[in-house]
Amino acid sequence: MSRDRVESTAGVWPEYTRPYQTKGTTVRGAVLYAPGDIRVEDRPDPKIEQPTDAVIRLAATCVCGSDLWPYRGLEEVQTPWPMGHEYVGIVEEVGSDVRTIKPGQFVVGSFFASDNTCEICRAGYQTGCVHRQPAAPGGAQAEYARITLADGTLVAAPEMPADSLLPSLLAASDVLGTGWFGAVAAEAGPGKTVAVVGDGAVGLLGVLAAKQLGAERIIAMSRHESRQKLAREFGATDIVTERGDEGVARVKELTGGLGAHSVIEAVGTQESMMQAIRSTRAGGHVGYVGVSHGVELPGEELFFSHVHLHGGPAPVRRFLPELIGLILDGTIDPGQVFDLELPLNEAAEGYRAMDERRAIKSLLRP
Amino acid sequence: MSRDRVESTAGVWPEYTRPYQTKGTTVRGAVLYAPGDIRVEDRPDPKIEQPTDAVIRLAATCVCGSDLWPYRGLEEVQTPWPMGHEYVGIVEEVGSDVRTIKPGQFVVGSFFASDNTCEICRAGYQTGCVHRQPAAPGGAQAEYARITLADGTLVAAPEMPADSLLPSLLAASDVLGTGWFGAVAAEAGPGKTVAVVGDGAVGLLGVLAAKQLGAERIIAMSRHESRQKLAREFGATDIVTERGDEGVARVKELTGGLGAHSVIEAVGTQESMMQAIRSTRAGGHVGYVGVSHGVELPGEELFFSHVHLHGGPAPVRRFLPELIGLILDGTIDPGQVFDLELPLNEAAEGYRAMDERRAIKSLLRP
Repeated sequence: MSRDRVESTAGVWPEYTRPYQTKGTTVRGAVLYAPGDIRVEDRPDPKIEQPTDAVIRLAATCVCGSDLWPYRGLEEVQTPWPMGHEYVGIVEEVGSDVRTIKPGQFVVGSFFASDNTCEICRAGYQTGCVHRQPAAPGGAQAEYARITLADGTLVAAPEMPADSLLPSLLAASDVLGTGWFGAVAAEAGPGKTVAVVGDGAVGLLGVLAAKQLGAERIIAMSRHESRQKLAREFGATDIVTERGDEGVARVKELTGGLGAHSVIEAVGTQESMMQAIRSTRAGGHVGYVGVSHGVELPGEELFFSHVHLHGGPAPVRRFLPELIGLILDGTIDPGQVFDLELPLNEAAEGYRAMDERRAIKSLLRP
Repeated sequence: MSRDRVESTAGVWPEYTRPYQTKGTTVRGAVLYAPGDIRVEDRPDPKIEQPTDAVIRLAATCVCGSDLWPYRGLEEVQTPWPMGHEYVGIVEEVGSDVRTIKPGQFVVGSFFASDNTCEICRAGYQTGCVHRQPAAPGGAQAEYARITLADGTLVAAPEMPADSLLPSLLAASDVLGTGWFGAVAAEAGPGKTVAVVGDGAVGLLGVLAAKQLGAERIIAMSRHESRQKLAREFGATDIVTERGDEGVARVKELTGGLGAHSVIEAVGTQESMMQAIRSTRAGGHVGYVGVSHGVELPGEELFFSHVHLHGGPAPVRRFLPELIGLILDGTIDPGQVFDLELPLNEAAEGYRAMDERRAIKSLLRP
């Protein structure tokens, strides 16, 4: 990707900035009613509720691997649940206390809102902000969304990006930022061998992040040909198709019996966590970003493994300015993880395709 | 403590360097027969078995908190078990492959032997050495001990230390090195608030280490007056007597609701690990060095805690040269953790006193 994909705001406006429709009393949005039952329906028009809010018009949104947990019935759905927490779009309106974000700006934000001023935020853990809350409480798989704590949560692009850059900017909102945090938490860097457990969008972008951070060797663990191919494009030097103990043995074989220096865990299951820990050498680093489901870590094994363990909900906000820059100047092209693009109204098919692993990640156009 | 406690080798030899006895066919050593049943008895005279071995004459040895696990029946004792893994002494004899360690030197070593040349050792994780093995397989609560991988395991003092420095040098062999690693793993340093869970010798020396590493505020968690006093001498600025959730609440109260930047865990139980994790702020560091017993870490809570977790068997060898220097020049006095000194023959009382918490740590003189 090169600079010429970025159009000047003085030139032709990209398609997504054209008036979409008159904002009415309702907008379209995706709602999960029960496992497997996603409906796009009319929902209340998002309004400024707090003086720190913004309302944005979505340029693009998407389905997250973590959306599949409730979709698959692995998280309980008690009431209809407005879905979506990944978003890029144009600011329509801001609350009276919003100072830096302005209507008309193209913005990217993270799934958790943060004030970006507290001690935890200043240490780079915006997803642990003392005012942490969902950034898009009414759901972001929608035409419009209310974003909380707009000043601390949203990052405005310095220019109106070309339509072709939307997928990559949308990726920055979560999966790129999460893969990046995984690589940072795993201390991927020059001279390091990095292994990546999980070949979903986050794992694949963990590969991209490790490459950008200067890793010498990147082992992608994947059994799917199309994902292996993308992993290689993103910088993987080795592919391991084995899983569990066999996968661990293969990583050790590739690393002189020691294990990788850095392992990114991007799944969140017991098997994947143990595979990550056991693939890491003594003194090495595990960066785990797969949302943990039913995991219990055996203390004694962890103690004697000598690994560093760090992870959690990625503080995407920490990385957004840098990531937006790398996307706008064409250094990285993370949008390749979107291998399915659908109108918002067909969100249900976007979920199905990911659930059946026909798609890595589904982009939805409102 | 000042320089004058270090006697020159040209001067009067400290008492412990006098010929102790003629080395015969047997030597005295402590053996655990069953929970609560420690006996000091005649044992085979340690000999060079591998060309990388050394045999040392113990100047002092001691009872470790981890020795109490089998003593209390929490680890199974199937055959009589020669005890002890903390030692300082004078080299008697070395194997044919030993190059740097020489007879007559005063040495300190760690509980695990390491080659100190492999990739893992060079990264500072000597307790994860590819050739890791017990350093004193025949037990170090004895008159003599065989030390494996002598060149990689033992560190020779630059001079023959005064008898008064023996406790501190012995502490370096394990509890000081372990507390130090806990503080390093917890990233204690300038500007940081450090909390310490556990008021045994390791926890207390974690306080000392945090102070040396420049921590601004050190919260010692202890309910025992004598230990609180020593914690304060070592640098604690605050004492928290509450445990569990109440202890966590108290640490949060002392840290503006956020939790400590760094928490040293020096116990190894489920309660102490959760207390440590929950006392740490998002983005903070837990350094855990209490040998893990029956711990299961809940993945989801760990994920959302956002802490860094690192620990394991302390790579004491990494820190020994620096720690020996700090002791010899009088900067630190970690030997204060020994509040009971007994002849080796009375090892059983040393165990009992620690088990009943009458003593923090028992030093044994062969």
